[in-house]
Amino acid sequence: MASCIFCKIIKGDIPCFKLYESEKTLAFLDINPLSRGHALVIPKFHGEKLTDIPDDHLTELLPIAKKLALATGANEYNILQNNGRGAHQEVDHVHFHMIPKPNPEEGLGIGWPQQKTDMDKLKALYDEIKQKL
Amino acid sequence: MASCIFCKIIKGDIPCFKLYESEKTLAFLDINPLSRGHALVIPKFHGEKLTDIPDDHLTELLPIAKKLALATGANEYNILQNNGRGAHQEVDHVHFHMIPKPNPEEGLGIGWPQQKTDMDKLKALYDEIKQKL
Repeated sequence: MASCIFCKIIKGDIPCFKLYESEKTLAFLDINPLSRGHALVIPKFHGEKLTDIPDDHLTELLPIAKKLALATGANEYNILQNNGRGAHQEVDHVHFHMIPKPNPEEGLGIGWPQQKTDMDKLKALYDEIKQKL
Repeated sequence: MASCIFCKIIKGDIPCFKLYESEKTLAFLDINPLSRGHALVIPKFHGEKLTDIPDDHLTELLPIAKKLALATGANEYNILQNNGRGAHQEVDHVHFHMIPKPNPEEGLGIGWPQQKTDMDKLKALYDEIKQKL
């Protein structure tokens, strides 16, 4: 993808603070961090959303995110991957954030508009999703 | 872990709306959803944080989260895994949320307190993290 900023980083056309690289995966520091140590892990395979990435390009991402969490020494942290503008995705190439949460002010802010448990609705939804799996 | 609610679900001592199960992984509906289709993917290996889970128990989680996103038909969605109370973790057994984001009101709310880019700080941090990787 000639216009994709993350593909340009993968190719080396744009520099990055590269933390890890393998055949299928790249990790680097986010240059607009939410907290100290905020890093990104991306598949080299270009795809906009998680559902666009082949399974064999997804297996390394979490072990690498784990390495980053350990290396930053973060005690509390969030792993986040956004799909779509409405879900806060800004770059259209799948990326996993590893965001240390050192205090309430820095790191990821989370809103949790929990719905009431409705067992009948859940059962109907369950039957529907199971058919599609 | 006798007292862990997710370990009880894995053992079958507590029921769930089970969407997927393999030797190492379980997926089920969240009964306090943020949106329709909100589901959880967990390693059967008990660990509180991502850094507590062996790599070979991490490889299936994203391919399964992808299956769930496809089966729910979600167009926009967030993948989230929280580590620590300060980072909004409520159950101390690693779990990945797949949360559809159908509209601004439902699904995950995100706060993004972005910091200014400071290349000198980033370079110093980079040198520090690289040593630990």
